[in-house]
Amino acid sequence: MTASTAFFTDRYELTMLDASLRSGTAHRESFFEAFARRLPNGRRYGVVAGTGRLLELITRFRFTDAELDWLRTGDVVHQSTLDWLADYRFSGDIWGYREGEAYFPGSPLLVVNASFAEGVILETLVLSVLNHDSAIASAAARMVSVALGRPIAEMGSRRTDEESAVAAARAAYIAGFTATSNLEAGRRWGLPTMGTAAHAFTLLHDSEEDAFRAQIEAFGTGTTLLIDTYDIHEGVETAIRVAGTGLGAVRIDSGDLPSVVSAVREQLDRLGAVNTRITVTSDLDEYLIGALSGSPVDAYGVGTSVVTGSGAPTAGMVYKLVARRDDAGEWVSVAKSSLDKASVGGRKSAVRRIDSTRTAREEIVFIGDGPSGEQEGSGDTSHERELHVPLMVDGVADERHLGAAGTQAAREHRASVMQELPIEAFRLGVGEAAIPTVWR
Amino acid sequence: MTASTAFFTDRYELTMLDASLRSGTAHRESFFEAFARRLPNGRRYGVVAGTGRLLELITRFRFTDAELDWLRTGDVVHQSTLDWLADYRFSGDIWGYREGEAYFPGSPLLVVNASFAEGVILETLVLSVLNHDSAIASAAARMVSVALGRPIAEMGSRRTDEESAVAAARAAYIAGFTATSNLEAGRRWGLPTMGTAAHAFTLLHDSEEDAFRAQIEAFGTGTTLLIDTYDIHEGVETAIRVAGTGLGAVRIDSGDLPSVVSAVREQLDRLGAVNTRITVTSDLDEYLIGALSGSPVDAYGVGTSVVTGSGAPTAGMVYKLVARRDDAGEWVSVAKSSLDKASVGGRKSAVRRIDSTRTAREEIVFIGDGPSGEQEGSGDTSHERELHVPLMVDGVADERHLGAAGTQAAREHRASVMQELPIEAFRLGVGEAAIPTVWR
Repeated sequence: MTASTAFFTDRYELTMLDASLRSGTAHRESFFEAFARRLPNGRRYGVVAGTGRLLELITRFRFTDAELDWLRTGDVVHQSTLDWLADYRFSGDIWGYREGEAYFPGSPLLVVNASFAEGVILETLVLSVLNHDSAIASAAARMVSVALGRPIAEMGSRRTDEESAVAAARAAYIAGFTATSNLEAGRRWGLPTMGTAAHAFTLLHDSEEDAFRAQIEAFGTGTTLLIDTYDIHEGVETAIRVAGTGLGAVRIDSGDLPSVVSAVREQLDRLGAVNTRITVTSDLDEYLIGALSGSPVDAYGVGTSVVTGSGAPTAGMVYKLVARRDDAGEWVSVAKSSLDKASVGGRKSAVRRIDSTRTAREEIVFIGDGPSGEQEGSGDTSHERELHVPLMVDGVADERHLGAAGTQAAREHRASVMQELPIEAFRLGVGEAAIPTVWR
Repeated sequence: MTASTAFFTDRYELTMLDASLRSGTAHRESFFEAFARRLPNGRRYGVVAGTGRLLELITRFRFTDAELDWLRTGDVVHQSTLDWLADYRFSGDIWGYREGEAYFPGSPLLVVNASFAEGVILETLVLSVLNHDSAIASAAARMVSVALGRPIAEMGSRRTDEESAVAAARAAYIAGFTATSNLEAGRRWGLPTMGTAAHAFTLLHDSEEDAFRAQIEAFGTGTTLLIDTYDIHEGVETAIRVAGTGLGAVRIDSGDLPSVVSAVREQLDRLGAVNTRITVTSDLDEYLIGALSGSPVDAYGVGTSVVTGSGAPTAGMVYKLVARRDDAGEWVSVAKSSLDKASVGGRKSAVRRIDSTRTAREEIVFIGDGPSGEQEGSGDTSHERELHVPLMVDGVADERHLGAAGTQAAREHRASVMQELPIEAFRLGVGEAAIPTVWR
């Protein structure tokens, strides 16, 4: 993975660079901020994901001869800009919410401090990664909470682009999914992978029994047999006859799940397969998982809905210039004034106020220099948890956020943050953000 | 682009392979078929996209030492299967709808003829590419038709994963978009790229006038100035004062567009900038484009809605084993029988019946051997247009579908197919497929 990521970029980032290099404004020190104006679909919270992936991609954001030649041939920017790009490597600082952190409208998720030139050309890549991965993680977290501790596997690779499938598997894992079907996600990010057989495997064989025997021959009786290719109750009968009562699990991929699951459980128990688990995987989303909370399901597999963000395939984050120096070196807060897309100027920091019951109560965004360090409440356990951590310093990524270890750390951070959210955060219905965002 | 694509694959494809190699069924000659059970969101037609991209990805579907080592370490499959995978390269035949073709529920979009082993392990990749790219193209085609010939640029890279952004730009172009903001899509697929400046560029400068001067200095008066960072009418005033009446275009990215566009047009005309074009780009989708049909808009830019399939981010296609030989060499049609996910067994071919007014009337799917060659109606110009073309023969891709040339050909094919669809196909409202699918 050493290929340049520089062309995952909108052309206008380079034309803005070009014009600002010529006008002499390109070198003005700037703050850019990524945030979401609102949560999608009336959700109560979002989950930041993509950060670790983004830091690696920024490290590979370089204009090699291949990129420079293409830009030259297409007459995209002037030669002086090509010269500047040839030397480009991001040398600024990036702070942001830790991967796995909850976020709310206006949360300053990522703050980039660099020259305008260095910061502006990262815009497209920053947003692609954060918008996609956070959309998946935000949907996935709801599925995890409504699954009430039952494991959920991500298996939606076929319903999204082949590379976004890998990113989606990672984001779902950070949000608490337990495994993925995607081999590349397993390899690249160290995620547990799972999967046994599809209907095609049963159809390939002369009978369901032949197929089950073949699968058990290959993987032992601990495997998961897919029982709904033909008649589901004959499928269960055959599965236990072939595998014995030690069969690991059966998978159900169709039908009215609450009734089918109960009937299969009863049938398995009657046959003595009391420890055989039931996995369900039929176009599930958070609502259908919720509707199965009273059913004897042991594990879920979720595909389409998680990789498409369950109705919100993008998180709607934007990346805005919020402050920059003028020629005298003074900081100027900036914001566009369109009524429907207003943003709050100024560099930001943020804390989450946690009350004495360890419950989050407010997202407090400071404009300008906020208080530094954790703030303790007086005489109780309430406190303000600082939300920004350094992600890149002088263009060097903090290693703790990278790779499989960073992914695992993000998953653990998400788990602890979820415990902090007020109970209203976990309502599935449409509503307001679980805690208010206040600006100070 | 020589990296292996073999791990863009669900683990169960390999476990099925493993078990079938052991049971001796892996070598049964098979037909797999990709199709969609329904069109998303009550749409009237879908547009096939991804085919050219898929063929290249299949060519790179190889298990190198890196993949084999990972599978061995993870104990995913047996050693004999690893040996088989080491030699794997797809050697079968693939027919399918041409890229850019319209499709309907049940259309056999892709037919793969190979051993079970060779065909099954392509499932995830085939579906990832076709589901993603066709979802984008299907949404984009509606935007193109409702834009009534005005150009539309794709600029949604920031709202989807960085690699899917490239695929989305390509799919939108095939569907009739005229350009993309994405540089990698420009380089990889030969698409026209566009873009000039964002609000950040204006905010960087000490005044809007400074920003406009800087942009014109870099790119000349033919450029597009973004006029809504502050007051839009002052923006227009300043733009023309700085650029003169020869200004190429202004871009509007906020506000109540129909009223704003009309006012800006009047203002431009009053200032003498009668040839200055108006581009609008504010969270547009097919409905908002439609609502601007009576407004003096010259060009559209579309982001989020096109790259997320405008409410249908995946096309819902499935890849099913539909026929396979038994041990005696006889063909057996196969299909699972779950009521809610039934499929039609048997290898398929398909034609579209075109009436004497050159209008499509039926999608006819033949089970088993259909008629070969184009069918002429008697005594008039009606005919049955054959929909399957060879895409891969003995594992070798037909070059005409590949690369920038293949992308261009797909775009042209889409244009001719759109002319054939009945007028009902272009209704935006929810409804039935524009033509019925009949099985013979």
